[in-house]
Amino acid sequence: MKVFIYTDLNQSLQEKLRIELPPGTELSFKSNLSESEVLPAFKLAEVIMGNPPPSWFEEPLPSPKFWQIDSAGFNQYQHLKLNTTIANMGDLFSQDCAETIIGGILALYRGLNHLIKFQLDKEWRAQEIRPFTESLGDKKVLILGSGTIGLAVKKALSGFGCQIKTTARNNPIADFHSFEEILKALPETDLVINTLPGTLTHYVSQTFIEAMRKGSIYANIGRGNTTDEKALIANLANNKLGGAVLDVTEKEPLSKDSPLWTMDNVILTQHTGGSGSQEVIGRVKRFISNFYLFIKDEEINDKVELQTGY
Amino acid sequence: MKVFIYTDLNQSLQEKLRIELPPGTELSFKSNLSESEVLPAFKLAEVIMGNPPPSWFEEPLPSPKFWQIDSAGFNQYQHLKLNTTIANMGDLFSQDCAETIIGGILALYRGLNHLIKFQLDKEWRAQEIRPFTESLGDKKVLILGSGTIGLAVKKALSGFGCQIKTTARNNPIADFHSFEEILKALPETDLVINTLPGTLTHYVSQTFIEAMRKGSIYANIGRGNTTDEKALIANLANNKLGGAVLDVTEKEPLSKDSPLWTMDNVILTQHTGGSGSQEVIGRVKRFISNFYLFIKDEEINDKVELQTGY
Repeated sequence: MKVFIYTDLNQSLQEKLRIELPPGTELSFKSNLSESEVLPAFKLAEVIMGNPPPSWFEEPLPSPKFWQIDSAGFNQYQHLKLNTTIANMGDLFSQDCAETIIGGILALYRGLNHLIKFQLDKEWRAQEIRPFTESLGDKKVLILGSGTIGLAVKKALSGFGCQIKTTARNNPIADFHSFEEILKALPETDLVINTLPGTLTHYVSQTFIEAMRKGSIYANIGRGNTTDEKALIANLANNKLGGAVLDVTEKEPLSKDSPLWTMDNVILTQHTGGSGSQEVIGRVKRFISNFYLFIKDEEINDKVELQTGY
Repeated sequence: MKVFIYTDLNQSLQEKLRIELPPGTELSFKSNLSESEVLPAFKLAEVIMGNPPPSWFEEPLPSPKFWQIDSAGFNQYQHLKLNTTIANMGDLFSQDCAETIIGGILALYRGLNHLIKFQLDKEWRAQEIRPFTESLGDKKVLILGSGTIGLAVKKALSGFGCQIKTTARNNPIADFHSFEEILKALPETDLVINTLPGTLTHYVSQTFIEAMRKGSIYANIGRGNTTDEKALIANLANNKLGGAVLDVTEKEPLSKDSPLWTMDNVILTQHTGGSGSQEVIGRVKRFISNFYLFIKDEEINDKVELQTGY
């Protein structure tokens, strides 16, 4: 079986694939091929790992039987019509995402962003911080989205004592299912954590933010385009919102002239949410296990439909 | 009953006490008295709220029937022999302490301390952070101490998926009960969270730190004197330890020449752990409820013995 690996892998991870994939697998690694060899190898592949440019799926059509996307989101491929079994990285990044966003939220509530700046100047300014610290445990939290990241955030928050509500269009385990229900809940919400997929452009709109409680906090560990960033910035500037923790932004890297960089109550985590020292090996392991499920015709938990765009 | 309030309270909190304490209570507030009136009022008081200097308890002895200490720790009073019912603030600060230390730990694992510095310079440096981020969920955690802070930390961590062990000299719910048992567990521990009381000077000694796993993380939300800071600094400098989150230090404010200020893998939260915007009113409420328990001769949950020093 011809396998094309788009993901950049070092020699030891390439070797891992050579050893662990079944005998008879013909592996070609994009990073080992000359420029002219890459596209033909991709077009011939029966199995693909990685996230090539969407344009590679134009005529002549590739016809992979199995495609392992190596991210959680795959919004850029939504429009493709492929007769292919497709898997994403499932919950591989969810725990890391949950930890980054909760770390940022705790930093905001407990004043750690200020304390880290004071440390740079060797200034003991505890007395300025104390009156403004707050407790996550007292808060009413709304998690937008009940995918793997939303569920990981909910689980990680479970020991803090905060009240947690969740949303999902269809999943009955969520508390709210429509934009209208969510708008009604927002005035009573202290903290909104967005874990939505990139299909929901500007879901967090001016209307959404207007409905939020004055002084409440907005956190985004989903996709940057799900937030109307202009509206967000305006509502941070006029103190409607009490602060924001943003792992994602509409444009990444964030442009130098964005006011978000210098806002005192904004923490930017630069889309590092899903990262980890075990990140690349984690992707390879996930591909190998999904590959075996595919060839044995067993159920793949990470299987996705492109149209969902998550 | 004569009540002396050492704690600085604003007019509205003074008024709250006047309204809510029983009729016949004679309140005197240190902040409303002239310098010469303060000590006589203290010596006559039957009930005291706050943390006066230990020297005030010298001859002529005050003889309070009830003393509400307005902190969690009271190490400075350990040597006093008083025939007095004494309460501390119990678990009032525990949740806030847990949130600050976990916020700091997540900041360290997820690189937020670096990201916050990059933000100051408007630099998108995600790629430098990604390979070094780690997951708290993968870690083996040892919480030193099973008091209210230790238990609050354990509860708040419960949703992250990390393995948690606890210590206590006598409490059977803890996993380890002696220094020797703890030394044996340290090589397998990724993260030590100290919540010990001030009676245990230099409990975290050079011997303790030597037994820790190379690259492991040390966090202290207990008391600064429980750590041999010189040994800690040496073991951070030589990379034996992977980092530290310190809410408390041996000297506070930390002196300007401490190497801790500039260590890249150290986060200093400047003893803000127990703080909150509701902090002072929380103390007043706790005093009022303990006062009523005292005069009704009912059991006070926050009752303490000075010799424990916690």
